[in-house]
Amino acid sequence: MVANTMEDLVSLCKRRGFIFQTNDIYGGIKGLYDYGPMGVELKNNLKKSWWKSMVYERDDIEGIDTSILTGQQVLKYSGHEDTFTDPLIDCKSCKFRCRADQIIDKSCPNCKSKDLTESRPFNLMFKTSIGPVDDGSNFAYLRPETAQQIFINFKNILDSTNRTLPFGIAQIGKAFRNEITPRNFIFRVREFEQMELEFFVEPGKDEEWYEYWVSSRHQWWIEQGISKDRLELDKVKDEDLSHYSKSTIDIIYNFPHGKEELEGIANRTDFDLGSHTKNQNEFEISSKVISNKDSTTKLVIQNLENKKWVVPYVIEPSAGVERGVLALLNEAYFEDEKNSRLVLKLKPHLSPIKAAVIPLKRNNDELVNKAKLLKKELQKIGLGRVMLENSGNIGKNYRRHDEIGTPLCITVDFETLENESVTIRDRDTMEQKRLSPEDLKSHYINILGNKN
Amino acid sequence: MVANTMEDLVSLCKRRGFIFQTNDIYGGIKGLYDYGPMGVELKNNLKKSWWKSMVYERDDIEGIDTSILTGQQVLKYSGHEDTFTDPLIDCKSCKFRCRADQIIDKSCPNCKSKDLTESRPFNLMFKTSIGPVDDGSNFAYLRPETAQQIFINFKNILDSTNRTLPFGIAQIGKAFRNEITPRNFIFRVREFEQMELEFFVEPGKDEEWYEYWVSSRHQWWIEQGISKDRLELDKVKDEDLSHYSKSTIDIIYNFPHGKEELEGIANRTDFDLGSHTKNQNEFEISSKVISNKDSTTKLVIQNLENKKWVVPYVIEPSAGVERGVLALLNEAYFEDEKNSRLVLKLKPHLSPIKAAVIPLKRNNDELVNKAKLLKKELQKIGLGRVMLENSGNIGKNYRRHDEIGTPLCITVDFETLENESVTIRDRDTMEQKRLSPEDLKSHYINILGNKN
Repeated sequence: MVANTMEDLVSLCKRRGFIFQTNDIYGGIKGLYDYGPMGVELKNNLKKSWWKSMVYERDDIEGIDTSILTGQQVLKYSGHEDTFTDPLIDCKSCKFRCRADQIIDKSCPNCKSKDLTESRPFNLMFKTSIGPVDDGSNFAYLRPETAQQIFINFKNILDSTNRTLPFGIAQIGKAFRNEITPRNFIFRVREFEQMELEFFVEPGKDEEWYEYWVSSRHQWWIEQGISKDRLELDKVKDEDLSHYSKSTIDIIYNFPHGKEELEGIANRTDFDLGSHTKNQNEFEISSKVISNKDSTTKLVIQNLENKKWVVPYVIEPSAGVERGVLALLNEAYFEDEKNSRLVLKLKPHLSPIKAAVIPLKRNNDELVNKAKLLKKELQKIGLGRVMLENSGNIGKNYRRHDEIGTPLCITVDFETLENESVTIRDRDTMEQKRLSPEDLKSHYINILGNKN
Repeated sequence: MVANTMEDLVSLCKRRGFIFQTNDIYGGIKGLYDYGPMGVELKNNLKKSWWKSMVYERDDIEGIDTSILTGQQVLKYSGHEDTFTDPLIDCKSCKFRCRADQIIDKSCPNCKSKDLTESRPFNLMFKTSIGPVDDGSNFAYLRPETAQQIFINFKNILDSTNRTLPFGIAQIGKAFRNEITPRNFIFRVREFEQMELEFFVEPGKDEEWYEYWVSSRHQWWIEQGISKDRLELDKVKDEDLSHYSKSTIDIIYNFPHGKEELEGIANRTDFDLGSHTKNQNEFEISSKVISNKDSTTKLVIQNLENKKWVVPYVIEPSAGVERGVLALLNEAYFEDEKNSRLVLKLKPHLSPIKAAVIPLKRNNDELVNKAKLLKKELQKIGLGRVMLENSGNIGKNYRRHDEIGTPLCITVDFETLENESVTIRDRDTMEQKRLSPEDLKSHYINILGNKN
């Protein structure tokens, strides 16, 4: 039920317009990908599903969308300038440069020389100069995570919404990491999207909320179609924890290249708000933070019962959109040998195309116009993209829509012109049946409606 | 019916959680903004409306979502390295640097000295180093427009969709410009989002499609709620045309700071595909393009009638999301003096919150639970965010939801506990009436349904 190899996925993704290598007509750039007509819909559907479950269906979370370019002070006090690094080694013989963990048998993977530098930290943040004066003093980073911009907007959100603890701020957006060696298709890339929630709680209530979010996020991925059998929860060892974390559990997925992190849930304690707040000494901050004389704003909230101002603790479920897409594609990939076809068994709410409407003959105006009208009607229901397929080759259309995961194919034929009925074909069972227009509509809503 | 000044909008946006200055706790960064809980919904609703009208409702457009980091060759052949510049002048006395058009009376706007350098071109593209070797040879640009990534994916889209002319590729995404002097709130910023369509047509059919798109885009903005009276079409003078354009018409909106471009529709001819294609000499390219020996791919399509391979012409409607948001906020802003309130008369499909459900008393479990259930039911219909307002202060809630443009406020009171009926209040008329649960649902769908 999953792909045998990553190559199977890469090939399907290119052929059917999910994912292309960025700048491929000029030889490509490592670690960067473009999402084609099917990829953009799949990605948007995944993001929509997350936003719905976080912001729309709950009553305790607000959304935000912040800028990518981020000031130096933000990433100084967050600890990223000092600690967001990978170990880097140079080969003195051939000048090859790589991550320390790529060195095999203490020799250069490029020329096999053992004349190597000591490992030293390489900061993974991209930097760019801002404004017309390029003297090195005016620069910004491309944010390495969306989280920091949530923290520094804490007071803005409080002032405009009147929230009390516990509550969360959710964000979906791009983040950038200058990976030394991007790899494994869209798994480890230099530009990617995150879906991050920062959930603020009273100090002391952090551990129960941490457990709550671990189980809630695990369940959510199962609802998106990931098999429970290929998911694991992995408690990150103390020595591997990020500088801000008291405890982290990774949701691990069995990707084609191995078991790796799909999402991490971290107890960031009061580290972030404590790092960015003004007047740190006025508050009880349990984390070790750098002294901050630059912040102009107190990032605290009043406990309405005991009137004390507190720096909240934060629980952070942080998921990668691309990793989600890769896991979902892998789960859905099914070589149906019995019927000699490849099918993408995506959950309908994630399918890029919800239904294909196919006139039986390409050049028959009556059929084509009927199909166009029907497409328009289904489109109007508002559950995602419905596509008119006007190639006149039904077999080819079925094959294509199986491979991109379209739940329903609807054929408009000469009988339709007489009594409006159409033939529908189910992606998974391949069963075909004839339906009246009313039955078609309710069947469509039933399959695609708000189950997720 | 519009804001008197930009300051009115800025103040509302901050107070109600639409828009904040980026990094404001550290003094802010010019030309960068964050979108709060209301801003993110408004922006997403606008983008959704565009995507729907382009990709979902038509049968001739595909979507795409490409990377922001862009290789140097792409922006060399596109002409951006050479021509994407603003004129820059230095003051020799005080070292102040500014755009040539900011010089007043031939003197420095900072120190009034007349000892100025000649104006010279300043490239507006942000640059960043990629990979672990930072010797200046490995860099990428943050894309200055989303369009180029569409052009270089032309063949990928053709191969994965079997399109024939005419057809378009649509993209929504961030673009970056290192403006020397960002200004006018979110109008001229350094990081922004574009909604761009590249519509490919047979050479010779470009002028009719150009006219089609000008009128179609003008109409679309009116459907989003922009008054026709504050829109103008402005043909860009030949001497002001971008290097790629044969003809451009700007859709001008009367912003609080003056009449400026909201969207531009350009006839980019065969310049872009002609610039990026392999084997330029094999094809008739009417534009003046740099000779390209680097491209590995022919960006052409076969005319199925005469079998000739052609480089298509491109019509590009290119709109700014932030400018759209600014225009929509301005149009919707209404100081209702008669009722001493401020109302944001957004079209319901754009409103950040679709309905607020308000229990009459905050601490009454029965009322609160009933309200939660009702919120959940309306949320399930799937037309956008519904909010539970549990502050126990109905007057304050009405005031807030008027100011953020919520079309409906629904109050759950003691009569609701008896017979399920609720009171609804209309944002624009302020009329209140009592409805049964069934009538409420159909009223909600009627107001918020797929009109746009």
